[in-house]
Amino acid sequence: MATPAPIEFWFDFSSPYAYFASHSIAAVAAEAGRAVRWRPFMLGAAFKATGMRPLTLTPIRGDYARRDWARLARLMDLPFRLPARHPYTALAVSRAFYWIEQAMPERAPGFARAAFRAHFEDGRDLTGAAAVAELAEAAGAPSDRVAAAIESPAIKEHLRRRTDEALAKGVFGSPFFIVDGEPFWGWDRMALMRQWMDRGGW
Amino acid sequence: MATPAPIEFWFDFSSPYAYFASHSIAAVAAEAGRAVRWRPFMLGAAFKATGMRPLTLTPIRGDYARRDWARLARLMDLPFRLPARHPYTALAVSRAFYWIEQAMPERAPGFARAAFRAHFEDGRDLTGAAAVAELAEAAGAPSDRVAAAIESPAIKEHLRRRTDEALAKGVFGSPFFIVDGEPFWGWDRMALMRQWMDRGGW
Repeated sequence: MATPAPIEFWFDFSSPYAYFASHSIAAVAAEAGRAVRWRPFMLGAAFKATGMRPLTLTPIRGDYARRDWARLARLMDLPFRLPARHPYTALAVSRAFYWIEQAMPERAPGFARAAFRAHFEDGRDLTGAAAVAELAEAAGAPSDRVAAAIESPAIKEHLRRRTDEALAKGVFGSPFFIVDGEPFWGWDRMALMRQWMDRGGW
Repeated sequence: MATPAPIEFWFDFSSPYAYFASHSIAAVAAEAGRAVRWRPFMLGAAFKATGMRPLTLTPIRGDYARRDWARLARLMDLPFRLPARHPYTALAVSRAFYWIEQAMPERAPGFARAAFRAHFEDGRDLTGAAAVAELAEAAGAPSDRVAAAIESPAIKEHLRRRTDEALAKGVFGSPFFIVDGEPFWGWDRMALMRQWMDRGGW
Protein backbone atom coordinates (compact mmCIF):
# COMPACT_ATOMS: atom_id res chain seq x y z
CA MET A 1 0.00 0.00 0.00
CA ALA A 2 1.24 3.50 -0.85
CA THR A 3 1.96 5.88 2.01
CA PRO A 4 -1.08 8.10 2.47
CA ALA A 5 -0.64 11.79 1.58
CA PRO A 6 0.06 14.29 4.34
CA ILE A 7 -2.66 16.43 5.85
CA GLU A 8 -2.26 19.99 4.60
CA PHE A 9 -2.77 22.23 7.62
CA TRP A 10 -3.42 25.78 6.39
CA PHE A 11 -3.47 28.49 9.02
CA ASP A 12 -2.72 32.08 9.94
CA PHE A 13 -0.42 32.43 12.94
CA SER A 14 -2.79 35.04 14.34
CA SER A 15 -5.77 32.66 14.43
CA PRO A 16 -6.92 31.39 17.86
CA TYR A 17 -8.69 28.38 16.38
CA ALA A 18 -5.45 27.48 14.59
CA TYR A 19 -3.68 27.69 17.95
CA PHE A 20 -6.04 25.03 19.28
CA ALA A 21 -5.54 22.92 16.16
CA SER A 22 -1.74 23.24 16.45
CA HIS A 23 -1.95 21.34 19.72
CA SER A 24 -3.74 18.32 18.33
CA ILE A 25 -3.03 18.07 14.60
CA ALA A 26 0.12 15.96 15.02
CA ALA A 27 -1.77 13.35 17.06
CA VAL A 28 -4.70 13.32 14.64
CA ALA A 29 -2.33 12.80 11.70
CA ALA A 30 -0.27 10.11 13.46
CA GLU A 31 -3.43 8.18 14.25
CA ALA A 32 -4.22 8.15 10.53
CA GLY A 33 -0.66 7.22 9.59
CA ARG A 34 -0.12 10.57 7.90
CA ALA A 35 2.34 13.44 8.13
CA VAL A 36 1.34 17.07 8.59
CA ARG A 37 2.27 19.72 6.03
CA TRP A 38 2.23 22.99 8.00
CA ARG A 39 1.09 25.75 5.68
CA PRO A 40 0.93 29.30 7.08
CA PHE A 41 -0.68 31.85 4.79
CA MET A 42 -1.98 35.40 5.02
CA LEU A 43 -5.64 35.08 5.97
CA GLY A 44 -6.21 38.76 5.18
CA ALA A 45 -5.87 37.95 1.49
CA ALA A 46 -8.68 35.40 1.80
CA PHE A 47 -10.81 37.91 3.69
CA LYS A 48 -10.45 40.29 0.76
CA ALA A 49 -11.81 37.59 -1.53
CA THR A 50 -14.74 36.56 0.68
CA GLY A 51 -15.61 39.86 2.36
CA MET A 52 -15.18 38.23 5.77
CA ARG A 53 -13.42 39.95 8.68
CA PRO A 54 -11.31 38.91 11.66
CA LEU A 55 -13.61 37.39 14.29
CA THR A 56 -12.79 39.87 17.05
CA LEU A 57 -13.68 42.72 14.70
CA THR A 58 -17.07 41.19 13.80
CA PRO A 59 -19.96 42.42 15.98
CA ILE A 60 -21.78 39.78 18.08
CA ARG A 61 -19.79 36.94 16.51
CA GLY A 62 -16.63 38.36 18.09
CA ASP A 63 -18.15 38.11 21.58
CA TYR A 64 -19.14 34.52 20.88
CA ALA A 65 -15.64 33.69 19.66
CA ARG A 66 -14.00 35.07 22.83
CA ARG A 67 -16.30 32.99 24.98
CA ASP A 68 -15.73 29.96 22.78
CA TRP A 69 -11.92 30.22 22.97
CA ALA A 70 -12.06 30.47 26.75
CA ARG A 71 -14.20 27.35 27.07
CA LEU A 72 -12.09 25.39 24.54
CA ALA A 73 -8.99 26.29 26.56
CA ARG A 74 -10.66 24.98 29.71
CA LEU A 75 -11.82 21.84 27.91
CA MET A 76 -8.38 21.12 26.46
CA ASP A 77 -6.59 22.35 29.59
CA LEU A 78 -4.48 24.84 27.62
CA PRO A 79 -3.15 28.13 28.98
CA PHE A 80 -4.74 30.22 26.22
CA ARG A 81 -5.11 33.99 26.74
CA LEU A 82 -6.12 36.37 23.97
CA PRO A 83 -3.27 38.93 23.76
CA ALA A 84 -4.11 42.62 24.10
CA ARG A 85 -2.70 43.18 20.63
CA HIS A 86 -4.86 40.88 18.55
CA PRO A 87 -5.18 40.14 15.69
CA TYR A 88 -1.70 40.80 14.40
CA THR A 89 -0.29 40.67 10.90
CA ALA A 90 1.76 37.50 10.88
CA LEU A 91 4.04 38.38 7.99
CA ALA A 92 7.39 38.08 9.76
CA VAL A 93 6.61 34.81 11.50
CA SER A 94 5.17 33.24 8.34
CA ARG A 95 8.24 34.20 6.32
CA ALA A 96 10.50 32.86 9.06
CA PHE A 97 8.58 29.60 8.98
CA TYR A 98 9.14 29.10 5.25
CA TRP A 99 12.85 29.91 5.50
CA ILE A 100 13.22 27.37 8.28
CA GLU A 101 11.21 24.85 6.28
CA GLN A 102 13.63 25.25 3.38
CA ALA A 103 16.85 25.34 5.39
CA MET A 104 16.09 22.89 8.20
CA PRO A 105 12.72 21.29 7.53
CA GLU A 106 12.72 19.10 10.63
CA ARG A 107 12.67 22.25 12.81
CA ALA A 108 9.76 23.96 11.07
CA PRO A 109 6.82 22.32 12.94
CA GLY A 110 8.51 22.99 16.29
CA PHE A 111 8.98 26.61 15.34
CA ALA A 112 5.33 26.91 14.33
CA ARG A 113 4.14 25.42 17.61
CA ALA A 114 6.47 27.73 19.54
CA ALA A 115 5.08 30.76 17.66
CA PHE A 116 1.52 29.80 18.60
CA ARG A 117 2.48 29.32 22.23
CA ALA A 118 4.49 32.55 22.40
CA HIS A 119 1.55 34.60 21.16
CA PHE A 120 -1.42 32.83 22.73
CA GLU A 121 0.09 31.61 25.98
CA ASP A 122 2.77 34.19 26.77
CA GLY A 123 1.13 37.17 25.04
CA ARG A 124 4.23 37.93 23.00
CA ASP A 125 4.02 40.37 20.13
CA LEU A 126 5.34 38.64 17.01
CA THR A 127 4.84 41.53 14.63
CA GLY A 128 8.51 42.48 14.45
CA ALA A 129 11.46 40.64 12.92
CA ALA A 130 13.55 40.80 16.11
CA ALA A 131 10.95 38.98 18.23
CA VAL A 132 10.52 36.35 15.53
CA ALA A 133 14.28 35.83 15.12
CA GLU A 134 14.62 35.32 18.87
CA LEU A 135 11.84 32.76 18.78
CA ALA A 136 13.54 30.99 15.87
CA GLU A 137 16.81 30.82 17.80
CA ALA A 138 15.03 29.09 20.69
CA ALA A 139 13.61 26.61 18.16
CA GLY A 140 17.10 25.79 16.87
CA ALA A 141 17.33 28.10 13.85
CA PRO A 142 20.05 30.82 13.60
CA SER A 143 18.44 34.15 14.49
CA ASP A 144 20.66 36.24 12.19
CA ARG A 145 19.82 34.19 9.13
CA VAL A 146 16.13 34.17 10.03
CA ALA A 147 16.15 37.96 10.50
CA ALA A 148 17.76 38.35 7.08
CA ALA A 149 15.30 35.90 5.50
CA ILE A 150 12.32 37.90 6.78
CA GLU A 151 13.48 40.79 4.58
CA SER A 152 14.60 38.71 1.62
CA PRO A 153 12.68 39.13 -1.66
CA ALA A 154 12.81 35.37 -2.29
CA ILE A 155 11.08 34.51 0.98
CA LYS A 156 8.56 37.31 0.59
CA GLU A 157 7.72 35.90 -2.83
CA HIS A 158 7.59 32.38 -1.40
CA LEU A 159 4.94 33.39 1.15
CA ARG A 160 2.95 35.24 -1.52
CA ARG A 161 2.93 32.08 -3.59
CA ARG A 162 1.77 29.98 -0.66
CA THR A 163 -1.07 32.45 -0.04
CA ASP A 164 -2.02 32.34 -3.73
CA GLU A 165 -1.94 28.56 -3.52
CA ALA A 166 -4.26 28.64 -0.52
CA LEU A 167 -6.80 30.78 -2.35
CA ALA A 168 -6.52 28.64 -5.48
CA LYS A 169 -7.31 25.59 -3.34
CA GLY A 170 -10.38 27.26 -1.86
CA VAL A 171 -8.90 27.97 1.57
CA PHE A 172 -10.86 30.86 3.08
CA GLY A 173 -10.44 30.44 6.84
CA SER A 174 -8.06 29.25 9.53
CA PRO A 175 -7.48 26.49 10.37
CA PHE A 176 -8.30 24.76 7.12
CA PHE A 177 -7.33 21.17 6.36
CA ILE A 178 -7.02 19.39 3.04
CA VAL A 179 -6.58 15.65 2.94
CA ASP A 180 -6.57 13.72 -0.34
CA GLY A 181 -8.09 16.81 -1.94
CA GLU A 182 -10.98 16.99 0.53
CA PRO A 183 -11.35 20.33 2.38
CA PHE A 184 -12.28 20.73 6.06
CA TRP A 185 -12.70 24.20 7.50
CA GLY A 186 -12.36 24.90 11.19
CA TRP A 187 -11.16 23.43 14.41
CA ASP A 188 -14.59 21.86 14.89
CA ARG A 189 -14.24 19.86 11.68
CA MET A 190 -11.25 17.85 12.82
CA ALA A 191 -13.57 15.10 14.08
CA LEU A 192 -15.24 14.83 10.67
CA MET A 193 -11.82 14.78 8.99
CA ARG A 194 -10.79 11.85 11.20
CA GLN A 195 -13.91 10.01 10.18
CA TRP A 196 -13.18 10.82 6.51
CA MET A 197 -9.65 9.40 6.80
CA ASP A 198 -10.80 6.31 8.71
CA ARG A 199 -13.39 5.46 6.09
CA GLY A 200 -11.45 6.66 3.08
CA GLY A 201 -14.24 9.12 2.30
CA TRP A 202 -17.91 8.39 1.74
CA MET B 1 -33.90 17.27 40.78
CA ALA B 2 -35.48 20.02 38.72
CA THR B 3 -36.29 19.27 35.10
CA PRO B 4 -33.43 20.60 32.96
CA ALA B 5 -34.23 23.58 30.73
CA PRO B 6 -35.06 22.99 27.08
CA ILE B 7 -32.49 23.44 24.34
CA GLU B 8 -33.26 26.63 22.44
CA PHE B 9 -32.83 25.77 18.76
CA TRP B 10 -32.56 29.03 16.79
CA PHE B 11 -32.64 28.74 13.03
CA ASP B 12 -33.68 30.25 9.73
CA PHE B 13 -35.88 27.96 7.63
CA SER B 14 -33.69 28.76 4.63
CA SER B 15 -30.51 27.45 6.28
CA PRO B 16 -29.11 24.12 5.00
CA TYR B 17 -27.12 23.49 8.19
CA ALA B 18 -30.33 24.02 10.16
CA TYR B 19 -31.98 21.40 7.92
CA PHE B 20 -29.32 18.91 9.01
CA ALA B 21 -29.77 19.91 12.65
CA SER B 22 -33.56 19.55 12.38
CA HIS B 23 -33.04 15.85 11.73
CA SER B 24 -31.04 15.16 14.88
CA ILE B 25 -31.89 17.81 17.48
CA ALA B 26 -34.80 15.86 18.96
CA ALA B 27 -32.61 12.80 19.56
CA VAL B 28 -29.79 14.91 21.03
CA ALA B 29 -32.22 16.61 23.39
CA ALA B 30 -33.95 13.38 24.42
CA GLU B 31 -30.60 11.82 25.27
CA ALA B 32 -29.96 14.73 27.64
CA GLY B 33 -33.48 14.52 29.10
CA ARG B 34 -34.39 17.90 27.64
CA ALA B 35 -37.08 19.33 25.40
CA VAL B 36 -36.39 21.38 22.27
CA ARG B 37 -37.69 24.93 21.92
CA TRP B 38 -37.85 25.51 18.15
CA ARG B 39 -37.07 29.16 17.48
CA PRO B 40 -37.17 30.33 13.85
CA PHE B 41 -35.91 33.86 13.29
CA MET B 42 -34.93 36.06 10.35
CA LEU B 43 -31.23 35.46 9.84
CA GLY B 44 -31.02 38.45 7.49
CA ALA B 45 -31.46 40.74 10.49
CA ALA B 46 -28.41 39.14 12.13
CA PHE B 47 -26.44 39.48 8.89
CA LYS B 48 -27.15 43.22 8.97
CA ALA B 49 -25.64 43.38 12.45
CA THR B 50 -22.54 41.29 11.69
CA GLY B 51 -21.90 42.17 8.06
CA MET B 52 -22.04 38.47 7.13
CA ARG B 53 -23.84 37.18 4.04
CA PRO B 54 -25.70 34.04 3.01
CA LEU B 55 -23.15 31.26 2.39
CA THR B 56 -24.08 30.65 -1.23
CA LEU B 57 -23.55 34.34 -1.97
CA THR B 58 -20.07 34.38 -0.36
CA PRO B 59 -17.22 33.75 -2.81
CA ILE B 60 -15.07 30.63 -2.19
CA ARG B 61 -16.85 29.85 1.05
CA GLY B 62 -20.06 29.24 -0.91
CA ASP B 63 -18.38 26.54 -3.00
CA TYR B 64 -17.09 24.90 0.14
CA ALA B 65 -20.56 24.98 1.70
CA ARG B 66 -22.16 23.29 -1.30
CA ARG B 67 -19.60 20.51 -1.18
CA ASP B 68 -19.99 20.23 2.58
CA TRP B 69 -23.79 19.91 2.42
CA ALA B 70 -23.51 17.18 -0.19
CA ARG B 71 -21.08 15.13 1.90
CA LEU B 72 -23.12 15.65 5.11
CA ALA B 73 -26.19 14.40 3.27
CA ARG B 74 -24.27 11.29 2.17
CA LEU B 75 -22.91 10.78 5.70
CA MET B 76 -26.33 11.12 7.31
CA ASP B 77 -28.10 9.35 4.45
CA LEU B 78 -30.50 12.24 3.89
CA PRO B 79 -32.06 13.17 0.53
CA PHE B 80 -30.78 16.76 0.64
CA ARG B 81 -30.75 18.81 -2.59
CA LEU B 82 -30.08 22.53 -2.69
CA PRO B 83 -33.15 24.05 -4.39
CA ALA B 84 -32.67 26.20 -7.49
CA ARG B 85 -34.27 29.09 -5.64
CA HIS B 86 -31.99 29.42 -2.64
CA PRO B 87 -31.72 31.18 -0.25
CA TYR B 88 -35.31 32.28 0.21
CA THR B 89 -36.85 34.75 2.62
CA ALA B 90 -38.60 32.54 5.15
CA LEU B 91 -41.07 35.12 6.44
CA ALA B 92 -44.30 33.26 5.67
CA VAL B 93 -43.15 29.93 7.04
CA SER B 94 -41.70 31.49 10.21
CA ARG B 95 -44.94 33.37 10.88
CA ALA B 96 -46.95 30.22 10.26
CA PHE B 97 -44.74 28.38 12.72
CA TYR B 98 -45.43 30.87 15.52
CA TRP B 99 -49.15 30.86 14.89
CA ILE B 100 -49.18 27.06 15.10
CA GLU B 101 -47.05 27.19 18.21
CA GLN B 102 -49.62 29.45 19.87
CA ALA B 103 -52.73 27.67 18.64
CA MET B 104 -51.63 24.03 18.69
CA PRO B 105 -48.15 23.83 20.22
CA GLU B 106 -47.83 20.06 19.89
CA ARG B 107 -47.97 20.40 16.08
CA ALA B 108 -45.29 23.09 15.77
CA PRO B 109 -42.16 20.88 15.71
CA GLY B 110 -43.73 18.58 13.12
CA PHE B 111 -44.59 21.57 10.96
CA ALA B 112 -41.02 22.88 11.24
CA ARG B 113 -39.56 19.52 10.21
CA ALA B 114 -42.01 19.30 7.31
CA ALA B 115 -40.98 22.77 6.13
CA PHE B 116 -37.30 21.78 6.10
CA ARG B 117 -38.09 18.59 4.19
CA ALA B 118 -40.36 20.35 1.69
CA HIS B 119 -37.66 22.87 0.79
CA PHE B 120 -34.49 20.80 1.01
CA GLU B 121 -35.75 17.38 -0.06
CA ASP B 122 -38.61 18.19 -2.43
CA GLY B 123 -37.32 21.55 -3.68
CA ARG B 124 -40.58 23.31 -2.83
CA ASP B 125 -40.71 27.08 -2.87
CA LEU B 126 -42.00 28.24 0.51
CA THR B 127 -41.87 31.95 -0.19
CA GLY B 128 -45.61 32.36 -0.64
CA ALA B 129 -48.45 32.09 1.87
CA ALA B 130 -50.39 29.56 -0.22
CA ALA B 131 -47.56 27.02 -0.28
CA VAL B 132 -47.02 27.45 3.44
CA ALA B 133 -50.71 27.10 4.27
CA GLU B 134 -50.84 23.88 2.26
CA LEU B 135 -47.85 22.57 4.17
CA ALA B 136 -49.51 23.52 7.46
CA GLU B 137 -52.67 21.63 6.49
CA ALA B 138 -50.61 18.49 5.91
CA ALA B 139 -49.08 18.98 9.36
CA GLY B 140 -52.53 19.12 10.95
CA ALA B 141 -53.10 22.89 11.11
CA PRO B 142 -56.07 24.54 9.32
CA SER B 143 -54.74 26.13 6.13
CA ASP B 144 -57.23 29.02 6.09
CA ARG B 145 -56.34 30.15 9.59
CA VAL B 146 -52.63 29.78 8.86
CA ALA B 147 -52.98 31.82 5.66
CA ALA B 148 -54.77 34.55 7.63
CA ALA B 149 -52.17 34.44 10.41
CA ILE B 150 -49.33 35.00 7.92
CA GLU B 151 -50.84 38.40 7.16
CA SER B 152 -51.89 39.27 10.70
CA PRO B 153 -50.15 42.22 12.39
CA ALA B 154 -49.97 40.31 15.69
CA ILE B 155 -48.04 37.40 14.19
CA LYS B 156 -45.79 39.72 12.18
CA GLU B 157 -44.98 41.52 15.40
CA HIS B 158 -44.46 38.20 17.20
CA LEU B 159 -41.82 37.12 14.67
CA ARG B 160 -40.11 40.53 14.87
CA ARG B 161 -39.90 40.12 18.63
CA ARG B 162 -38.41 36.64 18.33
CA THR B 163 -35.80 37.99 15.90
CA ASP B 164 -35.00 40.83 18.30
CA GLU B 165 -34.72 38.27 21.08
CA ALA B 166 -32.28 36.22 19.00
CA LEU B 167 -30.03 39.23 18.41
CA ALA B 168 -30.25 40.24 22.07
CA LYS B 169 -29.09 36.73 23.00
CA GLY B 170 -26.12 36.94 20.64
CA VAL B 171 -27.51 34.62 17.98
CA PHE B 172 -25.76 35.48 14.70
CA GLY B 173 -25.98 32.30 12.64
CA SER B 174 -28.11 29.25 11.92
CA PRO B 175 -28.40 26.80 13.52
CA PHE B 176 -27.57 28.27 16.90
CA PHE B 177 -28.25 26.49 20.18
CA ILE B 178 -28.53 27.88 23.69
CA VAL B 179 -28.63 25.54 26.65
CA ASP B 180 -28.61 26.83 30.24
CA GLY B 181 -27.44 30.16 28.81
CA GLU B 182 -24.48 28.63 26.96
CA PRO B 183 -24.33 29.38 23.20
CA PHE B 184 -23.30 26.90 20.49
CA TRP B 185 -23.14 28.05 16.89
CA GLY B 186 -23.37 25.63 14.01
CA TRP B 187 -24.29 22.10 13.15
CA ASP B 188 -20.71 21.05 13.89
CA ARG B 189 -21.01 22.21 17.49
CA MET B 190 -23.76 19.78 18.43
CA ALA B 191 -21.14 17.29 19.63
CA LEU B 192 -19.59 19.88 21.95
CA MET B 193 -23.06 20.83 23.22
CA ARG B 194 -23.74 17.18 24.09
CA GLN B 195 -20.51 17.09 26.02
CA TRP B 196 -21.46 20.33 27.78
CA MET B 197 -24.83 18.89 28.82
CA ASP B 198 -23.32 15.57 29.93
CA ARG B 199 -20.77 17.28 32.14
CA GLY B 200 -22.96 20.18 33.24
CA GLY B 201 -20.45 22.59 31.73
CA TRP B 202 -16.75 22.89 32.47
